[in-house]
Amino acid sequence: MAPERIAVIGADAAGMSAAHQALRGARSRGRDVEVTVLESTGHTSYSACGIPYWIAGDVADGQQLVARTAAEHRRLGIDLRLGAAATELDLRHRTVHFSQNGTRCQLPFDQLVLATGAPAVIPDWARAPDGTLIPGVHPVKNLHDGAVWTRLLADGAQRAGAAPGDGRRAVLVGGGYIGLEMAETLVRRGWDSVLLTRTEVMSSLDPDMSARISAAMSQAGVRVEARTGVRALTRGRSGAVSGVVAADGRVYPARVVVLGLGVRPATELGAAAGLPLGDSGGYLPDAGGQVADGIWAAGDCCEVLHRLTGRPVFMPLGTHANKQGRVVGEDLAGGAARFGGVLGTAITRFAAGGQHLEIACTGLSAAAAHAAGLAACSLVTEGTTASGYMPEAAPIATRVLAETGSRRLLGMQIVGGPGAAKRIDTAAAALWGGLTVDDVAGMDLSYAPPFATAWEAVQLAARRLADQL
Amino acid sequence: MAPERIAVIGADAAGMSAAHQALRGARSRGRDVEVTVLESTGHTSYSACGIPYWIAGDVADGQQLVARTAAEHRRLGIDLRLGAAATELDLRHRTVHFSQNGTRCQLPFDQLVLATGAPAVIPDWARAPDGTLIPGVHPVKNLHDGAVWTRLLADGAQRAGAAPGDGRRAVLVGGGYIGLEMAETLVRRGWDSVLLTRTEVMSSLDPDMSARISAAMSQAGVRVEARTGVRALTRGRSGAVSGVVAADGRVYPARVVVLGLGVRPATELGAAAGLPLGDSGGYLPDAGGQVADGIWAAGDCCEVLHRLTGRPVFMPLGTHANKQGRVVGEDLAGGAARFGGVLGTAITRFAAGGQHLEIACTGLSAAAAHAAGLAACSLVTEGTTASGYMPEAAPIATRVLAETGSRRLLGMQIVGGPGAAKRIDTAAAALWGGLTVDDVAGMDLSYAPPFATAWEAVQLAARRLADQL
Repeated sequence: MAPERIAVIGADAAGMSAAHQALRGARSRGRDVEVTVLESTGHTSYSACGIPYWIAGDVADGQQLVARTAAEHRRLGIDLRLGAAATELDLRHRTVHFSQNGTRCQLPFDQLVLATGAPAVIPDWARAPDGTLIPGVHPVKNLHDGAVWTRLLADGAQRAGAAPGDGRRAVLVGGGYIGLEMAETLVRRGWDSVLLTRTEVMSSLDPDMSARISAAMSQAGVRVEARTGVRALTRGRSGAVSGVVAADGRVYPARVVVLGLGVRPATELGAAAGLPLGDSGGYLPDAGGQVADGIWAAGDCCEVLHRLTGRPVFMPLGTHANKQGRVVGEDLAGGAARFGGVLGTAITRFAAGGQHLEIACTGLSAAAAHAAGLAACSLVTEGTTASGYMPEAAPIATRVLAETGSRRLLGMQIVGGPGAAKRIDTAAAALWGGLTVDDVAGMDLSYAPPFATAWEAVQLAARRLADQL
Repeated sequence: MAPERIAVIGADAAGMSAAHQALRGARSRGRDVEVTVLESTGHTSYSACGIPYWIAGDVADGQQLVARTAAEHRRLGIDLRLGAAATELDLRHRTVHFSQNGTRCQLPFDQLVLATGAPAVIPDWARAPDGTLIPGVHPVKNLHDGAVWTRLLADGAQRAGAAPGDGRRAVLVGGGYIGLEMAETLVRRGWDSVLLTRTEVMSSLDPDMSARISAAMSQAGVRVEARTGVRALTRGRSGAVSGVVAADGRVYPARVVVLGLGVRPATELGAAAGLPLGDSGGYLPDAGGQVADGIWAAGDCCEVLHRLTGRPVFMPLGTHANKQGRVVGEDLAGGAARFGGVLGTAITRFAAGGQHLEIACTGLSAAAAHAAGLAACSLVTEGTTASGYMPEAAPIATRVLAETGSRRLLGMQIVGGPGAAKRIDTAAAALWGGLTVDDVAGMDLSYAPPFATAWEAVQLAARRLADQL
């Protein structure tokens, strides 16, 4: 009997997790499969989240961000084709058309995994008339982008000479994770930085928490311009960017412009083949990862189920991609794994210019709960990460949200000093288990003076909210 | 109508939490109460856990460990009597007999809270023939002990001159939290230290995790002698301790000896009055905190319900004392709060001599699960606290235990570098919610390169165990 042919499009976290899990799952069940992965770039399995730290200089080389090289994948039995760009999906004949080295090829399959990811959003104003990016303007999404930024910042430093800030002006467009992390990078590298955001910095958090972040960034010397859109760019004689024109007409000089405007799911292939898409344009896999008979999808090209609202959301994160990839690989090989959905857990930091702010959230913000029609109550508690008398003690502000009536925990946000943010996982575990604020207030969490207060910050917040509900 | 008379014995975490919560609860219900607290020492509401850090010099002054002074308690409406030692409990006449300044007094009550804590275990060999502690030998339990140790280490340093280690030899007896934390303190203060323990260092953890701690302590210069009991002490001409004679006859020279042999519940008062005690000698309050009609108990003098075994255990920790105190105060005032039991969550560190090891556990060890008759399976996973390419990455070993069949998480232990240990709370929350290893493997935990790996260490351990179950 011929082996079952499994095709995967996309060789990053979701695609490669699916590919390896499918191989393992099939072998453990004595099934004969061959797994072929098409990847349009030359890169596999890299940490996109690590790119700002590579640019900052924490990581010596982009190669260090690669979790598994092409050679390693192949050694494990994957037929990996790099530079192979899928161009058409023929569901009737169960064939992927792709081009490689200028040659058009076909890959027939029995089962297909769509793991095409999500490219950075590039606004029209960032492009020259020929459609290419204006020099000095770039997103921060893949290894190529990382290399471009490494060069841009080195060139910028060279042109400006040794004096910090001298002509080295950067504008960051977008106040999300990339905006924040690249602001850290730029400040650490001595660039004068302005951050423009149409809403607020980290607007997925509630406004009072967002304001704490904005304040710390300002303290570190980043000029934060909230509620400020971009109208156009100005260009110098070389054609490179020279400034950013805001919607209100103000001009911000810039030698480099960071595009931190998010990503969009790469679903053109499936859409053209008639696969249904969600409101955000992502695939809509079921809990096992299937989007049609024998067609699977995983990772950033998908919308995922939010466990608290029961609605699909576009929340492209490597953690989900890894988990979804495993589920798809397992089920594709005959298993019955289920992706349990997401809570919206996220973490980041802004550590530069004398500031060290950690930021994390899980579950719903007050605004998101309201939008989902949930009656909720919230409060913010100030505490310390260690006993107040210890040198390790840093401030921590915890915002906790619970449903009135059911008293079910709905969300938590943390903004604080070193050691603050990872506590968000305690709340994530509680949310995952559907626990109430009373459960969180009563649970047995760890305490010792270098690590916590006797009423752990996360728990104190829950207790106070429990008292008010 | 006369106000209801509430008497509390013991003015530390449990007693004062109960006292204040009773006042608040009664006031909110329009009930008239008067709350009297008897405290045999001169101290209230202090952090016993902070004492090693005070001795180490992290905390300038023992006063900083006091969360609330006597004056603050009184200002909030508590009739606090310091130096008032309860001598007899007359349940029939609902009266506490106590002595204060040499005077015998009586305190009649309608409701009574026993919050008498747990003094350090002092073995016979630590005492001189007159029953007093041999000079240089001391436990580390209360503020008085902290002051004694501050003086002992200063004197020891003076006698020895400036050269580190010159004659400054310490023996720590006991391999638990106090042994470990005082070993850190002594190494940081330049003392040559030997730790003797009858079992292993941190024997509440499984042996392989315990061995990691022992290795780090040895690396830092602490000589760890496991499976070594103490037979006697030797004394110098001044009468002060000069050495420790182990059970096997070996003699360890010592200018100071730390007694880290645990604590025992102070329940003589209740036992004499006929209140029932548990196997460890602690009171056995029900979930509301009552041990008899109108007689309540909270804190270190109690045994507490272990949520995973359903059995009472003696686990004297400030976190439980605070929570139990609140429950008792609330219920005493007419509420219906319940103490949810414990998981055995604990955290500490050994950070000295070039080592920085964090240690935490929650739930059951493999040995404890076996003793409880639970069929369980466990494994250890090695990982890093941050993405491997980040400067923040430190090793983390995670031991995870789950019940076969139900797949229910039963316990986790963590030993690792900076940032490792506080993740134990994620497991504690999962245990509190009764989650399975599959839940833990699937849950939405936070990831960014400075904070975690894409498969968070805690989660990776659960996933691998889930694959094996």
